[in-house]
Amino acid sequence: MIVILRHDAAAEKQEELVCWLEAQGLKIQRFDGEFQTAIGLIGDASRVDVELMSGLDIVEKVCRVSEPYRDCSRKHHPQDTVVNACGVPVGGGHFAMIAGPCAVESEEQIVSIARAVKAAGADLLRGGAFKPRTSPYDFSGLKAEGLKYLRVAREETGLPIVTELMDIRDLELFEDIDVIQVGARNMQNFDLLRELGKTRKPILLKRGLANTLRELLLSAEYIMASGNEQVILCERGIRTFSDYTRNTLDLSAVPMLHELSHLPVIVDPSHATGIARLVSPMALAGTAAGADGLMIEVHNDPMKARCDGAQALTPQAFAVLADKVRRVRETVMA
Amino acid sequence: MIVILRHDAAAEKQEELVCWLEAQGLKIQRFDGEFQTAIGLIGDASRVDVELMSGLDIVEKVCRVSEPYRDCSRKHHPQDTVVNACGVPVGGGHFAMIAGPCAVESEEQIVSIARAVKAAGADLLRGGAFKPRTSPYDFSGLKAEGLKYLRVAREETGLPIVTELMDIRDLELFEDIDVIQVGARNMQNFDLLRELGKTRKPILLKRGLANTLRELLLSAEYIMASGNEQVILCERGIRTFSDYTRNTLDLSAVPMLHELSHLPVIVDPSHATGIARLVSPMALAGTAAGADGLMIEVHNDPMKARCDGAQALTPQAFAVLADKVRRVRETVMA
Amino acid sequence: MIVILRHDAAAEKQEELVCWLEAQGLKIQRFDGEFQTAIGLIGDASRVDVELMSGLDIVEKVCRVSEPYRDCSRKHHPQDTVVNACGVPVGGGHFAMIAGPCAVESEEQIVSIARAVKAAGADLLRGGAFKPRTSPYDFSGLKAEGLKYLRVAREETGLPIVTELMDIRDLELFEDIDVIQVGARNMQNFDLLRELGKTRKPILLKRGLANTLRELLLSAEYIMASGNEQVILCERGIRTFSDYTRNTLDLSAVPMLHELSHLPVIVDPSHATGIARLVSPMALAGTAAGADGLMIEVHNDPMKARCDGAQALTPQAFAVLADKVRRVRETVMA
Amino acid sequence: MIVILRHDAAAEKQEELVCWLEAQGLKIQRFDGEFQTAIGLIGDASRVDVELMSGLDIVEKVCRVSEPYRDCSRKHHPQDTVVNACGVPVGGGHFAMIAGPCAVESEEQIVSIARAVKAAGADLLRGGAFKPRTSPYDFSGLKAEGLKYLRVAREETGLPIVTELMDIRDLELFEDIDVIQVGARNMQNFDLLRELGKTRKPILLKRGLANTLRELLLSAEYIMASGNEQVILCERGIRTFSDYTRNTLDLSAVPMLHELSHLPVIVDPSHATGIARLVSPMALAGTAAGADGLMIEVHNDPMKARCDGAQALTPQAFAVLADKVRRVRETVMA
Repeated sequence: MIVILRHDAAAEKQEELVCWLEAQGLKIQRFDGEFQTAIGLIGDASRVDVELMSGLDIVEKVCRVSEPYRDCSRKHHPQDTVVNACGVPVGGGHFAMIAGPCAVESEEQIVSIARAVKAAGADLLRGGAFKPRTSPYDFSGLKAEGLKYLRVAREETGLPIVTELMDIRDLELFEDIDVIQVGARNMQNFDLLRELGKTRKPILLKRGLANTLRELLLSAEYIMASGNEQVILCERGIRTFSDYTRNTLDLSAVPMLHELSHLPVIVDPSHATGIARLVSPMALAGTAAGADGLMIEVHNDPMKARCDGAQALTPQAFAVLADKVRRVRETVMA
Repeated sequence: MIVILRHDAAAEKQEELVCWLEAQGLKIQRFDGEFQTAIGLIGDASRVDVELMSGLDIVEKVCRVSEPYRDCSRKHHPQDTVVNACGVPVGGGHFAMIAGPCAVESEEQIVSIARAVKAAGADLLRGGAFKPRTSPYDFSGLKAEGLKYLRVAREETGLPIVTELMDIRDLELFEDIDVIQVGARNMQNFDLLRELGKTRKPILLKRGLANTLRELLLSAEYIMASGNEQVILCERGIRTFSDYTRNTLDLSAVPMLHELSHLPVIVDPSHATGIARLVSPMALAGTAAGADGLMIEVHNDPMKARCDGAQALTPQAFAVLADKVRRVRETVMA
Repeated sequence: MIVILRHDAAAEKQEELVCWLEAQGLKIQRFDGEFQTAIGLIGDASRVDVELMSGLDIVEKVCRVSEPYRDCSRKHHPQDTVVNACGVPVGGGHFAMIAGPCAVESEEQIVSIARAVKAAGADLLRGGAFKPRTSPYDFSGLKAEGLKYLRVAREETGLPIVTELMDIRDLELFEDIDVIQVGARNMQNFDLLRELGKTRKPILLKRGLANTLRELLLSAEYIMASGNEQVILCERGIRTFSDYTRNTLDLSAVPMLHELSHLPVIVDPSHATGIARLVSPMALAGTAAGADGLMIEVHNDPMKARCDGAQALTPQAFAVLADKVRRVRETVMA
Repeated sequence: MIVILRHDAAAEKQEELVCWLEAQGLKIQRFDGEFQTAIGLIGDASRVDVELMSGLDIVEKVCRVSEPYRDCSRKHHPQDTVVNACGVPVGGGHFAMIAGPCAVESEEQIVSIARAVKAAGADLLRGGAFKPRTSPYDFSGLKAEGLKYLRVAREETGLPIVTELMDIRDLELFEDIDVIQVGARNMQNFDLLRELGKTRKPILLKRGLANTLRELLLSAEYIMASGNEQVILCERGIRTFSDYTRNTLDLSAVPMLHELSHLPVIVDPSHATGIARLVSPMALAGTAAGADGLMIEVHNDPMKARCDGAQALTPQAFAVLADKVRRVRETVMA
């Protein structure tokens, strides 16, 4: 870490700062420029409070030299992690197609969609039983019953299931679930992350609407620091001023996350755009950007879907897309 | 709600949409423009899935006529709500100054700061016992012990206490707390909001980093729809491209929220800016914009604070500020 | 256009508004909901000042039914426009690869890069002679001399040239240039756009850093309304909170612009990311999203480039990329 | 400037970088941490291309030690600059109230508004003769005729006039104008800034919609580096995801700009919010934040205004506001 002092920093205040840093077990190296002074910290600076220093009167700016995460960093773990989603590998060259409805609505619905997406080549089945909704008056999922129908669909098709956990008190209900999803709004629900770190289940961690890549990786770090190394990162769009799509899909996050971390990175073009006719081009773009998988909403009757039908593909459209995705993937990997 | 159809919408698909809407108990009024057709929905359109319709092939755009919240709307409740924070009124002409350290660090620390802010005119004491931290390696609060010290500080000074709840499983520990704070990262932790709606405690709800005013009000609605009408809204900065301050304090939210809702609105300039020397001008600006209160971080020794010292005022600086705030408030209200 | 009135709008004020609208030659259709009233405007509402109405006391919200642009709209011109860039077709199924250095630095430099990119399959040569720079102390281009070297490179390779015009007073110097680029910072330099509309040269119009698609299309409309229909739109990244890349490449703009407009849409992954190692994945992603072309910075010695070397590919890396782009394009178009 | 190298930076590439920097006349100081190396540059690093270095394979990050501007920096000019707007001082303790209509519409209109705002205490008259409009079909001002009417209003009232220049070719027409405004969309029209730097007129420079404070100051630097030191900075709202107001007024820019620069800083709450009923609270907030002046739109008949009537105050409302502003200013300065 390097601390750049203001040009008018009083010598005694500088001394105080140096003492305070040395008291934290750090070695100090001064760097005197023509107008200003910088202080380099040698040792484990991860405990130093960056924000505190940034706000001191004598400090102009603090530059991090290393990122504050370790377990998810590629520096400390150069090889790609391959997450094992109940037998389906994700990452490290293994591409995973996850598909299904936004919400589980009935046994019949989820089983028939599961069959359709399996036939089109999906590797995992998604479907929400607990649904985060902005309004308290919207449909919030079938809950335990929805989980039951997902298990039936898995039995019928063999597809492992991915579904979202919102409230840590429901963890028991997820014992038999293959991959637990943490939604964008819970990306910084730190108590939830810590508890999921104690399980041994693969966690699909979605990037929050306004979170940087550093924050996403620190949230992954919460899970990993608690002992669970099976984390899949998911880019699903960020909030910007742009108003034609629900969110702005930040595909440069895919190669950047691959550079910073060894964890697999997938893309969810359905939530990112919120518009069914943009899902296919964005799915292909995500594949071309090097994603390790996609998460696509598919519904047999989008107009009657109980949530987010706007962004769902029909099983037919999904089959066409899945085929193109495979070919783009082959071209890019070649 | 008004649904604008695409200029090339097929007649039979239009018919299908109208049937689907009528099946939901709505009356339909067509509006034919020169090039396009719009459909107005009469009746309770709050159950209609806006996003679903927005994504239909034949739909160009959906305009809401009414906001999707009711209990927190000024339309249905024209008078200001006055929240009763253990005897201290907030809103409806009553200005509340909330002050204290970011984190409770020791009994001695919180008691001495409580005395100082009380002497300077604070109405409520803040202090974090459970601290959300971006990194799993940062200090995350004294937890139950911190709550104990807060209660001691209340006994010593008579100031009611405000402190953050992060995990719904800790709710029991907060039985004796006067105002429960929901942090920005939990603004859309819907299960938490629902549980807090079942209590009868005042809730201080912070706006999320990337949340619109509509979303903030819908989160308040979660609490109110569960039966708790004691909600204080808090603007604390949003995330933008601007990089000189930690967040961008959106003060126009203050008069806008007052227009949309009857709930009190306070401003937290400490978290918004992250820089102690900007806290006073932004506190005065928030007061001038019509806020019903302020939440200010105060620490007796910012450089030794265990978190967010960067943004804390000394008790002396706070006393000077509190006095100016009172005078600006008088001028603006005159 | 539909105007939604506030629930408490006084009858006489409503009457005034209706008169004012009728005086502008519009027919009015009222739409009375349970709680609120809306007014539909029939006729040419493009002259009505939306912002004025939005701010009236009795108005809650104004919804546009049609977009405010015409010439660039797909509604009024369903077939794709094919821009003729001095013999090279762009759009309507024709993919254009534009490559070259950020800035022209010498005759030798631009000629050697032009040869290299031509060999790798580029269709057009780019190179800046007039460079917009954030700081007045940075290199701002060779100006007229740079244009001369570009013409030499064109003679040597046959590649048509694309280069940026910043100041309308320089227009004469561009008489012999094949495609004139309008940079992101000038996207709303309306006088410049109007003048370019009077030429018959293809214009490559870059999206501004914080501009919506509507604003981009209205800027195209400025050019087209002045008589020039040869406009190429370019997505080059928008400004968001995300801080790992220089800008956030908004690839969903590609299919969305194709839906809204008949103009060709290209992608510039070099400026969007600012990081050379992200250019290839983002170029492939843009191709997969359906772009009609790419604009890629290539420099024979990035470390000695006089500007933006950070984002330039070597000619070797460009050749590898160009080949992959062709194959992804074929796969997606198949 | 400090360059942080990647942990795996090859020794020979490091050597190359050091040579390249030394060739630019800089002295190098190495700083070896436990895992990584940093390089400090001593000397005039303002010519070094930060973006080039940031993108090199061996570089992790570049931290600026000093800001890239000089003339507008408070470091090099500690006292406040007082701009002389034709006899009216702005900055350094002098508060300037600028008021008038968005657009000049007729001699009668501008004269009558000028009289009204003068009576209410305005110091300068604003009014647009050249209007930047997003759509080519909107009213774009009376141009030369508008300037003539402004001069008449000045004669009648003695108020100096502020008006926007959009096209550098019109500069001659502005010879008799007191303060030239550069609009938000032209903040990075560098050729325009350079030309204005050659005049000796006060320039009111508005912050662009998506520009950082550094970029705003570098644009001021363009003007000052060309010889004109009479620059007034203006915060007028930035573009964010927030959708209730037209823009988000970033009031923390006021104290931050005062810290970074000696130039006066004013606030335009009318364009920032776009909603007349938010103008007064935001004007008071800007004053409380320490602004050196305000720019307020006033129109005698907002509903008939030819542009931006939505955000204009009536003369009566302006008089009430001006009085409150004076009292808040006194309270804050006391």
